[in-house]
Amino acid sequence: MDVVERLQRECAEDPAVIGFAGGLPDPALFPRQALAASASRVLLAEGEAALQYAWPEGRAGLRRWIATHLRGLGAVVDPDDVIITSGAQQAIAVACDVLVARGCQVAVDAASYPGALDLLRAREARLVPTLTGGVAAAYAMPAMTNPCGEVVAESTLDELVAAARAHGAVLIEDDAYGLLGFDRGRGARLLAKDRDHVVHVGTFSKVLCPGLRVGWLVPPPGRREAVLEAKRVSDLHSNGLAQAIVEDLLGRIDLERYLAGARRHYADKAERLTGALARHLPSWSFAAPRGGFSVWVETPEPGDDAAFLEVAASHGVTFDPGAGYLPGGRPPTMCLRLSFSLVDRGRIDEGVRRLARAWARFRHGTAAA
Amino acid sequence: MDVVERLQRECAEDPAVIGFAGGLPDPALFPRQALAASASRVLLAEGEAALQYAWPEGRAGLRRWIATHLRGLGAVVDPDDVIITSGAQQAIAVACDVLVARGCQVAVDAASYPGALDLLRAREARLVPTLTGGVAAAYAMPAMTNPCGEVVAESTLDELVAAARAHGAVLIEDDAYGLLGFDRGRGARLLAKDRDHVVHVGTFSKVLCPGLRVGWLVPPPGRREAVLEAKRVSDLHSNGLAQAIVEDLLGRIDLERYLAGARRHYADKAERLTGALARHLPSWSFAAPRGGFSVWVETPEPGDDAAFLEVAASHGVTFDPGAGYLPGGRPPTMCLRLSFSLVDRGRIDEGVRRLARAWARFRHGTAAA
Repeated sequence: MDVVERLQRECAEDPAVIGFAGGLPDPALFPRQALAASASRVLLAEGEAALQYAWPEGRAGLRRWIATHLRGLGAVVDPDDVIITSGAQQAIAVACDVLVARGCQVAVDAASYPGALDLLRAREARLVPTLTGGVAAAYAMPAMTNPCGEVVAESTLDELVAAARAHGAVLIEDDAYGLLGFDRGRGARLLAKDRDHVVHVGTFSKVLCPGLRVGWLVPPPGRREAVLEAKRVSDLHSNGLAQAIVEDLLGRIDLERYLAGARRHYADKAERLTGALARHLPSWSFAAPRGGFSVWVETPEPGDDAAFLEVAASHGVTFDPGAGYLPGGRPPTMCLRLSFSLVDRGRIDEGVRRLARAWARFRHGTAAA
Repeated sequence: MDVVERLQRECAEDPAVIGFAGGLPDPALFPRQALAASASRVLLAEGEAALQYAWPEGRAGLRRWIATHLRGLGAVVDPDDVIITSGAQQAIAVACDVLVARGCQVAVDAASYPGALDLLRAREARLVPTLTGGVAAAYAMPAMTNPCGEVVAESTLDELVAAARAHGAVLIEDDAYGLLGFDRGRGARLLAKDRDHVVHVGTFSKVLCPGLRVGWLVPPPGRREAVLEAKRVSDLHSNGLAQAIVEDLLGRIDLERYLAGARRHYADKAERLTGALARHLPSWSFAAPRGGFSVWVETPEPGDDAAFLEVAASHGVTFDPGAGYLPGGRPPTMCLRLSFSLVDRGRIDEGVRRLARAWARFRHGTAAA
């Protein structure tokens, strides 16, 4: 275990630490009562199907809901095109198993989701900045980027699709945060443009809760059987009880109303964080996020972000070191991801004050060294 | 989708068909009321931890239970040695990701679990019958083999361990059916002999229910971090709600009493099946299973088991074609796996009568062709 993971684990256990690390949804929003009611209904009324072995593609009713959702976003998708996965991470992993050969080049954003970068590295992919000739795939979060919280420009997506067509590449579209744009939900933007070159990935982790591990995958037509076989050898099928609970819940809650509340909740926290950063750390630069859970910060100086995390932890605050989000590793100036999602709104300002004190100490130490 | 899968799916939907296919536990044994009570407790009393993102190794309390269980079987295991997986299948997959290089040779039994064989083939392993020099790994089910329902001889396990040590190979021990020996539970037999060369795999799928997808993995010391990273890039972590439910349930039910009932239940069905086979298909040979869910049958004649499945389905009965269990594919004489686990005890005799009629028809057709 490296020093960053050790620190993050220790700090996660300590309620005195203000945690800007992790990108976790706020458990205050988890619909626990509704989940408990759905769990009871599923177990007592249905039981058998949710608890038995099942086919690798997942529950038909849930796939119908997802297909309807994606059609609402403009994509041409049937329920049989959808494969339920154990979260978005497994969807990306299974897609890579089938569609991204080992050792090939994969285009990724200048800053991107570490779970995807680590997976691609584990699959021996070479990460490159642009989808050009010889590049087999691109991984992108068009609806809402992580860590930056940006909505990718339409023209950029059109260029991506044109490049994928020109070079016979596959586009992995990860919509993990798509429904949590502060103004509205977005998603399936690449899938709506091109079914043949796009693998679409979605999840209920950010909008309902991550612990159920229910995500999905829409492979290109003609690759479904191969992707399904990769899913089957990975874990046979995803959790039947969790699938049944989500399906039952979606049939009973007003999801749009729930999402509207979640968007306001996170937008308020984001505003508090960016306001506090402007007040207490004016030398740090960032763009205000348009959604998601975090703010991507560039400090004005080079430095070791793991060493700064140690100083921050000793000041009772944590963050995600930026290097993990960068395909090339450590950047010219130190970057951090600060997630506002899990922090109590009343503690955000104090968290940034602690960061500012830690930053002063860190710079002093660096200057003295 | 091949003809066998299409037939199995169609037949699984048809209650008129008597299904000896699939190796599914009997849902009559699923502790649904207890699971529902555990789900309510977990969601209403704990909620947050079970629904939030978690570390890839899984819940500490569940890992403690598993470590205690394995120590009771004679293995030297700490809770931190245990990694919770999404069923045994994912445990085998993650173990292969780290410990079985692509293209290497892996020793497997003469008949073995298709999920493991398919996974090894997908990982480009070459399947061989014996662990000798140049073979990187062996996959085995020492406590209870699938499909044969045999308990592997102690001397065979000693030879396997000696060979693994001599050749620096890893032994993947899959205990999926270990607790369902008809006389008693067994398990961790290889793990108890050698921690350094054994990857141990277990699951609650056969003893509680498969839909929760809760299994585990004990990697060799020194490989934990690598296996944990492979698990993390695969799906971040396994279902938190299911883990919490299983942990709660195990603290409340009398598992030994529950298992004793399950053993009697399945032993009775096994006896009915072997009795019916002896009566209605005396030309077929089999060994009475000592546990598990199925009987491995060798017919006296060569033939296409998928074609026989088509005939059987038209007679209202299904089975698993044997070729899927055989590393080399189709055997000299046709083999089948008949699972008694899911069939109502009162329908087992009728199921075998249908099989006998289908067999007569199939042989007639084959002779006429």
